[in-house]
Amino acid sequence: MVHADASNFAPGVTKEDAYEQVLLQAEGLFYEQRNWVCNLSNAAALLWHAYKSLPSPSNAVNWAGFYTFDTLSTPAQPQLILGPFQGKVACQTITFGRGVCGAAAATGKTQLVPDVDAFPGHIACDGDSRSEVVVPIVVGGKVVAIVDVDCAVKDGFDDVDRVWLEKLAELIGNSCDWPQ
Amino acid sequence: MVHADASNFAPGVTKEDAYEQVLLQAEGLFYEQRNWVCNLSNAAALLWHAYKSLPSPSNAVNWAGFYTFDTLSTPAQPQLILGPFQGKVACQTITFGRGVCGAAAATGKTQLVPDVDAFPGHIACDGDSRSEVVVPIVVGGKVVAIVDVDCAVKDGFDDVDRVWLEKLAELIGNSCDWPQ
Repeated sequence: MVHADASNFAPGVTKEDAYEQVLLQAEGLFYEQRNWVCNLSNAAALLWHAYKSLPSPSNAVNWAGFYTFDTLSTPAQPQLILGPFQGKVACQTITFGRGVCGAAAATGKTQLVPDVDAFPGHIACDGDSRSEVVVPIVVGGKVVAIVDVDCAVKDGFDDVDRVWLEKLAELIGNSCDWPQ
Repeated sequence: MVHADASNFAPGVTKEDAYEQVLLQAEGLFYEQRNWVCNLSNAAALLWHAYKSLPSPSNAVNWAGFYTFDTLSTPAQPQLILGPFQGKVACQTITFGRGVCGAAAATGKTQLVPDVDAFPGHIACDGDSRSEVVVPIVVGGKVVAIVDVDCAVKDGFDDVDRVWLEKLAELIGNSCDWPQ
């Protein structure tokens, strides 16, 4: 199988099945490969094509990717820095605590936001985004990265997304050597 | 302007104008930001959305992104490793000299390939790819990365692509701190 086929999803696939394929394919792609840039780049491609194969609202996803802990930031002001993604150009850095991504990084907890315009301090990297889910990737008690998915309609994500993205975050956390 | 707007191209834009916008936006995004993962991720987004705004064959681009020099590879067998991209899941590593990307890395020269099936040792990461252009990013005489763009039709690229991608490669090379 050529690599691209990992991102082909069957027509009519359910959201659970699509996420299951993402996880299985990610596990295969990460086998004997712990480079975090390489693995996050392929994981973003898997997620993006999974969403595009699903019915509404999932197919309205307009950004799927990662921010990682910026090792050049200071303990007094820790920040995230943009990692691999699919979608339009994005904000380069996000201070811990700022917006949805910053909240996930600061608390270590998933943020499921049905309406980003109602979220205090939301950062509008893309004015098209209406809902968002952000899952922290925690290794050894430290947030090393976050998974960030935006949707162009409200209520784009539910507990199915949360559960599977948390499984993916755990797999990614354990499968990569993270920058120190 | 929100960041995503950098990847919005005017309808009817010419290829030269689209590449010029890519370069101008890249220059702005790289200002005071030398993180290579961050900058390559946004550069891949700029390129992808530029191609999608253009007429055929450019809008048939099916992969746009980067491989970087794998600092874990040995001098006896140097290799590239997958970096940020937009498109479907891709091969993780490519030995210098293998396929179109490997040829660009080994020679330090742009590879403009009108028909990948006629290229000796072509690596089919994605069976849909029919033509390809690969431009090395050279810093201090060393290939630190390559820009790789695939198209789902033959003859997807010409000298306009070559000239502008070489300008982009030079800008990117000078704008990032590369892994040692």
